Amino acid sequence: MDDRSIRELLKDVAEGRLTPEQAHSRIKSLPFEDIGFAKIDHHRALRCGVPEVIFCQGKTPAQVGGIAERVLGAGSNLLATRAEPAHFEAVRQICPEAQYRQLARCITVRREAEPPRGQVLVVTAGTSDLPVAEEAVVTADMLGARVRLISDVGVAGLHRLLAYAGDIQSARVVVVVAGMEGALPSVVGGLVAAPVIAVPTSVGYGASFQGLAPLLTMLNSCAAGVAVVNIDNGFGAGYLAALINAMGDEGSE
Amino acid sequence: MDDRSIRELLKDVAEGRLTPEQAHSRIKSLPFEDIGFAKIDHHRALRCGVPEVIFCQGKTPAQVGGIAERVLGAGSNLLATRAEPAHFEAVRQICPEAQYRQLARCITVRREAEPPRGQVLVVTAGTSDLPVAEEAVVTADMLGARVRLISDVGVAGLHRLLAYAGDIQSARVVVVVAGMEGALPSVVGGLVAAPVIAVPTSVGYGASFQGLAPLLTMLNSCAAGVAVVNIDNGFGAGYLAALINAMGDEGSE
Amino acid sequence: MDDRSIRELLKDVAEGRLTPEQAHSRIKSLPFEDIGFAKIDHHRALRCGVPEVIFCQGKTPAQVGGIAERVLGAGSNLLATRAEPAHFEAVRQICPEAQYRQLARCITVRREAEPPRGQVLVVTAGTSDLPVAEEAVVTADMLGARVRLISDVGVAGLHRLLAYAGDIQSARVVVVVAGMEGALPSVVGGLVAAPVIAVPTSVGYGASFQGLAPLLTMLNSCAAGVAVVNIDNGFGAGYLAALINAMGDEGSE
Amino acid sequence: MDDRSIRELLKDVAEGRLTPEQAHSRIKSLPFEDIGFAKIDHHRALRCGVPEVIFCQGKTPAQVGGIAERVLGAGSNLLATRAEPAHFEAVRQICPEAQYRQLARCITVRREAEPPRGQVLVVTAGTSDLPVAEEAVVTADMLGARVRLISDVGVAGLHRLLAYAGDIQSARVVVVVAGMEGALPSVVGGLVAAPVIAVPTSVGYGASFQGLAPLLTMLNSCAAGVAVVNIDNGFGAGYLAALINAMGDEGSE
Amino acid sequence: MDDRSIRELLKDVAEGRLTPEQAHSRIKSLPFEDIGFAKIDHHRALRCGVPEVIFCQGKTPAQVGGIAERVLGAGSNLLATRAEPAHFEAVRQICPEAQYRQLARCITVRREAEPPRGQVLVVTAGTSDLPVAEEAVVTADMLGARVRLISDVGVAGLHRLLAYAGDIQSARVVVVVAGMEGALPSVVGGLVAAPVIAVPTSVGYGASFQGLAPLLTMLNSCAAGVAVVNIDNGFGAGYLAALINAMGDEGSE
Amino acid sequence: MDDRSIRELLKDVAEGRLTPEQAHSRIKSLPFEDIGFAKIDHHRALRCGVPEVIFCQGKTPAQVGGIAERVLGAGSNLLATRAEPAHFEAVRQICPEAQYRQLARCITVRREAEPPRGQVLVVTAGTSDLPVAEEAVVTADMLGARVRLISDVGVAGLHRLLAYAGDIQSARVVVVVAGMEGALPSVVGGLVAAPVIAVPTSVGYGASFQGLAPLLTMLNSCAAGVAVVNIDNGFGAGYLAALINAMGDEGSE
Amino acid sequence: MDDRSIRELLKDVAEGRLTPEQAHSRIKSLPFEDIGFAKIDHHRALRCGVPEVIFCQGKTPAQVGGIAERVLGAGSNLLATRAEPAHFEAVRQICPEAQYRQLARCITVRREAEPPRGQVLVVTAGTSDLPVAEEAVVTADMLGARVRLISDVGVAGLHRLLAYAGDIQSARVVVVVAGMEGALPSVVGGLVAAPVIAVPTSVGYGASFQGLAPLLTMLNSCAAGVAVVNIDNGFGAGYLAALINAMGDEGSE
Amino acid sequence: MDDRSIRELLKDVAEGRLTPEQAHSRIKSLPFEDIGFAKIDHHRALRCGVPEVIFCQGKTPAQVGGIAERVLGAGSNLLATRAEPAHFEAVRQICPEAQYRQLARCITVRREAEPPRGQVLVVTAGTSDLPVAEEAVVTADMLGARVRLISDVGVAGLHRLLAYAGDIQSARVVVVVAGMEGALPSVVGGLVAAPVIAVPTSVGYGASFQGLAPLLTMLNSCAAGVAVVNIDNGFGAGYLAALINAMGDEGSE
Repeated sequence: MDDRSIRELLKDVAEGRLTPEQAHSRIKSLPFEDIGFAKIDHHRALRCGVPEVIFCQGKTPAQVGGIAERVLGAGSNLLATRAEPAHFEAVRQICPEAQYRQLARCITVRREAEPPRGQVLVVTAGTSDLPVAEEAVVTADMLGARVRLISDVGVAGLHRLLAYAGDIQSARVVVVVAGMEGALPSVVGGLVAAPVIAVPTSVGYGASFQGLAPLLTMLNSCAAGVAVVNIDNGFGAGYLAALINAMGDEGSE
Repeated sequence: MDDRSIRELLKDVAEGRLTPEQAHSRIKSLPFEDIGFAKIDHHRALRCGVPEVIFCQGKTPAQVGGIAERVLGAGSNLLATRAEPAHFEAVRQICPEAQYRQLARCITVRREAEPPRGQVLVVTAGTSDLPVAEEAVVTADMLGARVRLISDVGVAGLHRLLAYAGDIQSARVVVVVAGMEGALPSVVGGLVAAPVIAVPTSVGYGASFQGLAPLLTMLNSCAAGVAVVNIDNGFGAGYLAALINAMGDEGSE
Repeated sequence: MDDRSIRELLKDVAEGRLTPEQAHSRIKSLPFEDIGFAKIDHHRALRCGVPEVIFCQGKTPAQVGGIAERVLGAGSNLLATRAEPAHFEAVRQICPEAQYRQLARCITVRREAEPPRGQVLVVTAGTSDLPVAEEAVVTADMLGARVRLISDVGVAGLHRLLAYAGDIQSARVVVVVAGMEGALPSVVGGLVAAPVIAVPTSVGYGASFQGLAPLLTMLNSCAAGVAVVNIDNGFGAGYLAALINAMGDEGSE
Repeated sequence: MDDRSIRELLKDVAEGRLTPEQAHSRIKSLPFEDIGFAKIDHHRALRCGVPEVIFCQGKTPAQVGGIAERVLGAGSNLLATRAEPAHFEAVRQICPEAQYRQLARCITVRREAEPPRGQVLVVTAGTSDLPVAEEAVVTADMLGARVRLISDVGVAGLHRLLAYAGDIQSARVVVVVAGMEGALPSVVGGLVAAPVIAVPTSVGYGASFQGLAPLLTMLNSCAAGVAVVNIDNGFGAGYLAALINAMGDEGSE
Repeated sequence: MDDRSIRELLKDVAEGRLTPEQAHSRIKSLPFEDIGFAKIDHHRALRCGVPEVIFCQGKTPAQVGGIAERVLGAGSNLLATRAEPAHFEAVRQICPEAQYRQLARCITVRREAEPPRGQVLVVTAGTSDLPVAEEAVVTADMLGARVRLISDVGVAGLHRLLAYAGDIQSARVVVVVAGMEGALPSVVGGLVAAPVIAVPTSVGYGASFQGLAPLLTMLNSCAAGVAVVNIDNGFGAGYLAALINAMGDEGSE
Repeated sequence: MDDRSIRELLKDVAEGRLTPEQAHSRIKSLPFEDIGFAKIDHHRALRCGVPEVIFCQGKTPAQVGGIAERVLGAGSNLLATRAEPAHFEAVRQICPEAQYRQLARCITVRREAEPPRGQVLVVTAGTSDLPVAEEAVVTADMLGARVRLISDVGVAGLHRLLAYAGDIQSARVVVVVAGMEGALPSVVGGLVAAPVIAVPTSVGYGASFQGLAPLLTMLNSCAAGVAVVNIDNGFGAGYLAALINAMGDEGSE
Repeated sequence: MDDRSIRELLKDVAEGRLTPEQAHSRIKSLPFEDIGFAKIDHHRALRCGVPEVIFCQGKTPAQVGGIAERVLGAGSNLLATRAEPAHFEAVRQICPEAQYRQLARCITVRREAEPPRGQVLVVTAGTSDLPVAEEAVVTADMLGARVRLISDVGVAGLHRLLAYAGDIQSARVVVVVAGMEGALPSVVGGLVAAPVIAVPTSVGYGASFQGLAPLLTMLNSCAAGVAVVNIDNGFGAGYLAALINAMGDEGSE
Repeated sequence: MDDRSIRELLKDVAEGRLTPEQAHSRIKSLPFEDIGFAKIDHHRALRCGVPEVIFCQGKTPAQVGGIAERVLGAGSNLLATRAEPAHFEAVRQICPEAQYRQLARCITVRREAEPPRGQVLVVTAGTSDLPVAEEAVVTADMLGARVRLISDVGVAGLHRLLAYAGDIQSARVVVVVAGMEGALPSVVGGLVAAPVIAVPTSVGYGASFQGLAPLLTMLNSCAAGVAVVNIDNGFGAGYLAALINAMGDEGSE
């Protein structure tokens, strides 16, 4: 309910196009759909520019299927993250063309195919960071970005990273995914003028403390232009990257 | 030393414009200046689009003065953060027009005045978060962004925040500064389509644990489009916000 | 053994109604029943106004069955929390009308049916918080409160919450259940005059650290009128909510 | 802006008592006053039943004075917590009858004197917990509760506590303040039917870790009916206690 | 190799009863037996007054069997803690009279039966603390103490504890086992003149953090005369209790 | 109020030696003295065998003086720990023969001089651990133990420790005080049959985390017979050591 | 690409032995092989003196097999750590002479057999530390060191350790592996002049916190000459030990 | 007391060159000097190859002066770390040629001047890390190493570091000192074949948590050949570096 819509609603009441009761009801008919265990936010696309995304962890397949049905019924694309195969089964029964991106653990349905925009680069320190990176790739892709993935270029073999310096420097946004000591975002942040989104992963052992070590590393990065999302949160990084990537197109409007 | 410059250097050698010794020397004359206790990165502006920024904490006034002298000597603007009055005194002797932004603890010298671009909005949860917010404001401003500050709109009085919903929704990037429970970025993140940079502050007591509580809150934000910088790191947030803000202009080129 | 009962006991001795040995034995026959591995506190209903509740975690089905038998034998209602199906089987053999509330993981037997009083509102941030919320609902219900549950109204979609502002403001006590960043209690606390009991859940991942993040958030809430119980402790919240809810009736006595 | 006020506002527009512009302006004239560095929430008393309280920590005396001036100007009582003597000086210049409760570090101005209601009991484990306890006492008192304080009845000398068992059992709400191991709330919680609000303090040393130890103790209390506020948060406990205490009167309306 | 034995050894050499080579060999034949993966400390009974105890966790059944064989071969009693049934099987093949104390997860073989001495009292806060308490009971018993166990007398039902005040006050040493908030040792410590050994358990959930909460509680105990062992370390508590208990007999020698 | 005294009291009532009112009053006249800010536990010596000890930290000199006056007035010895010089001044005005043990930060007054008993040995790893060790020495001494102190025998120079092996092995109880890595109690625990009380100190830096490192070391000690008190808690260790030491005399009664 | 190779490359271009394009291609043909999910660093042996080691954890058997194929194809020895049997199966199909060191969880293929050099000693505190110790042994052995293992010489039975004092003092480097309290490196560090590499293990329970306790112990070691690697990181310790061990041979060149 | 010296001692006794009493006394006259508050380990130079170093923190100037007097009296060089000016004053009175290295906070006296050996390289990430780095430099220098320092080559400006690649690769040992995110050791570790000793510093703020962040980063380093010392422990790093550096000379003997 932004400022402008309140003004218009009030004007409609004043000019008799709406009774007070109708206006009140409209305010109450808030832009979400209540299906008991969940409230689906159909107008999110209007408010935030992106459709509702389903976080499957902690939800039953039936719940995910139910939410997916409403989202798809509203004509939106579908993105469901942290999906287990059972979640996918539930969605596929509703929508046979749904796809399951196994490594990323994502379910996707794409209704319309705009050409991808800009360039989001996702970089990983190690091979084991790939599942988190893939979640970022799928997410940014679903939100309209052109995405590229470079993996296994951790800081202990700097020449591997430097071989891609040109690619890294030409991206609009760089997502850097790293576990263990999580040093890669600092190094990448020193090479580029683009924003860097750092994703710590729980890859590692011992004093990694399930990703606490790379999380702290990234928060303390001495390179400017780096911000951090939650441990293993490939979705959050891909989402934010897509938002920023899209800004590169807006100036031309 | 990016890809293109290596190609050109090699071509110069092959075509006799440079001897191997000259080329080697050029590679060695790396783009920084060594003044003993510090190595000043003059080409940072080329590589990362932003001049070297001086982090004063842990440096003596003499060291800060020395670095500032070189930065200014290279014709750059100057931004020094976490500056104590003694640091400012050292800089003012070198450059009388230097300014000290007391609340933000920043020293600034602006050589050229391009008109500010876009719109970065800095929002604070409480009055006590202002010093960190001001550091973000000064930083983004020095990097060319138009910046606005709205303070004291924490989540416990939601109507105060909602009164600014229009302003918040029209920003290109929103920096949200909050201590105590740090819930504001999640609420703002749900209201806007723009990227949100969350800055936890050490404002609070007890189980805030010097900012750990809002840091964790922000990392776990259920709102998409939110990334986090270090506790009290107004500089980092302002820097990243300015980078993203500038992207909104690039599409038009 | 409160003050008054000591006086009476002593008077009985002085006036010959009890021998010293009888009195001593009565003091020793403390108001609990010792069944070897557990001491059942039958007089808890007198002292604290609520019957003994069985916490099943870490107890064998046989132990839970044994305690339930004594509690029911004393004519009390029965509430057993953190119950696995095997615990329920053990109780059902003793009391066929026992019910198993699966999502809440509670076993209940209700002997007498007083009409529910007041209004306890249980609110969840997400769908995944439902098991903890249901434990709170069952507990408050067993202790005589009228209870209502509103789920999935987290702060990232503020309009979903505000749609229920009226409902929230008319409750006597509000229990707010939230995982991830745990920001909901602060927002609710700013909307209501009623006490808010915040329950952090272990729903989330990464830097949630099994519920530590929302726990700290809630403890640092900038909204007054909020207190916190242990992570995932729906029982504790429901219990306290029922105590407070009942106070709204006492003034009329 | 609750449900009812929206209805009435809309009715006023529909029936011509307000133009749409007037209505919009009224919605925008949100119930707070913007004095630059702070937004004062005058209608909090309406919404939450309690006037705005000033948290002085991290604010300058001038800021506290400025906020106090507006709060008092609106005819409210004044409560300012975590106040240093300099804050008090600033308030006293505005309002000579202001009082400084030194141990509690609170500034108070009481405009109207309703008779205190109910019974809030504040209990401390040790003498060193008194400052936090006093903050709770002053807060609950300012919010209309009758308050009593019993100090130094920690669990290592149980007979000291039991000597007050009658007093404890006759309170409507009990606030228990304890540092070191923080065991007192569990013991008190087992003695009473009333809600117990536990306040961990940073009193202690070593493995107390500035109050973390009693905080964890209280969150894990095996006694039902106990909820916890932040470390050293006497204000929060007193506030919540007063809310609950007042409920005991409401049934009679 | 204590002081006296060095003197004697040297005297034997000086007086020709031992050649230097023999003496050297004797020093080298240190009082342990090397069986490859382990070094068995047969003389521990001499040095520390207690035979070598086998900690089974992390050892294979074959390793435990091998060590047990040597210990028993040396004529000692056998105590093996943290034993799984497979460990017991391995030991029973070597020694058919070995017993498995299931709740305590201990294997015992008792060769000689001295009458138990003194009085060690083991007290638990809850039923779920019994496995740890039983480990303490078995250990103290194997080391010659008379042991008694009282369970489920946690602080939330103080009268249950006070009913045993006499028993508690007549013990030579009290071992107090508690999870959740771990408050029981402080209360017991205030009731007795005997040393109290506190054992935190990992019983609990949420902010118990696998026993961290009761550990901190116990370390911060305001009752003097309390010391703490590792989380779930029933063995350590029983061992120390037996040492202290035995001291009550020594004065008479 | 132990079992026996209740029996006798009741008998007195039954046989007319006490009226019920007198008996009730006697029960109420609990064995402490209420001086407002503190409740002094005079009968502690009876119940726990040791007089009330004053913990000065967080108390004003006046409060300490007031408590000391009552303790001395009751004819007890006086021990006040964590005392600053100002506390000592306050006590000296009441009792000119009071002594201040500066390194231990203890105030002592000794009324009667029984010959010291047994042997408590206090051992420190480093010179910097001496203040904590001295607190243990003074405490154990005041409680009647013969005490000896050996300092600076840390594990990195094992021969220094082994030089005292004989002394260590002849003590009844050993208190081991160590900061930094806190390894000394494990080594001592392997050398002796006596109970070992380990005291971690906050001596160290960096990853010592104010004593957390040695605390964890000591809790995880692989040597049996070791228990731990709070960081820097020399008092607690000395107190417990004296209790255990005294047991060596009891058997002879 | 070190300094000298750049000079030579440039000289080759200048003297016509390489075209600029060839030189550029050579720089781009960086010393790693890209096989999609991983980038294999064949020249690591040149740069760091040691071939690429495969860390299997988090990699599929197929990935490990693929990397092993390239490493072996380049003629290098093979070392793969944290290998499960399935990883071994994948490698054995490529290279039948591959060996699986079960306790160490390592796969090895040795192509050439230089005689082992120097003396690395690996010492463990307990039997349960053996898997980590074996990983260190295998690693150091594969890197050319002569290695010896002494197990179960923890500090609680000091004579077991001292029996090996001569062996320990004659090693070039000592790796000390310990869980629980992790005190062994401090004691060893005090006995030797050689560098000590400390490896904390996650062996233990309770307040070991998965190896945090010995990690902190070792970092705070009061013995000089001790450095620490990650919890359970036998590989890292063996690798570093082999590097240092090899230095003892270099002086003779 | 190593193996050989025991043999010789025994032989002396057997052959009458020593009486048993004399031998015993010699064993007792252990190689340290007891000056009351400290035990000085004169034979450390024999056992560990390095003289006793004085850690001044927590010692009084008089204590440091006293220890220094004995160390110098034994003809050793002197190194005292963490020295305040007052400590230096105390030492200068004993030894006028003592020097105070202010940035490193070290006191040194060098008796004999062997030519420095090998090459230890100390590298810092930032200017603020210099004090810790200087402590490492002074220590390694005092122990006979040739030392070089390169400062301010953090990973965010990689070209600064790579400019010194040749220097780094020619060192025998590299000490890397870094605060904030602590990523430098991983990058250096990937460039060199030499051992890398990583020193985390407490330089930073917020989520650095006084050096915890770089400590964890370094422990989790994905580069092999890296070990870690305590936060700010420049001494420990310099000491170990000197030990390793010296090994490069030993092979030639």
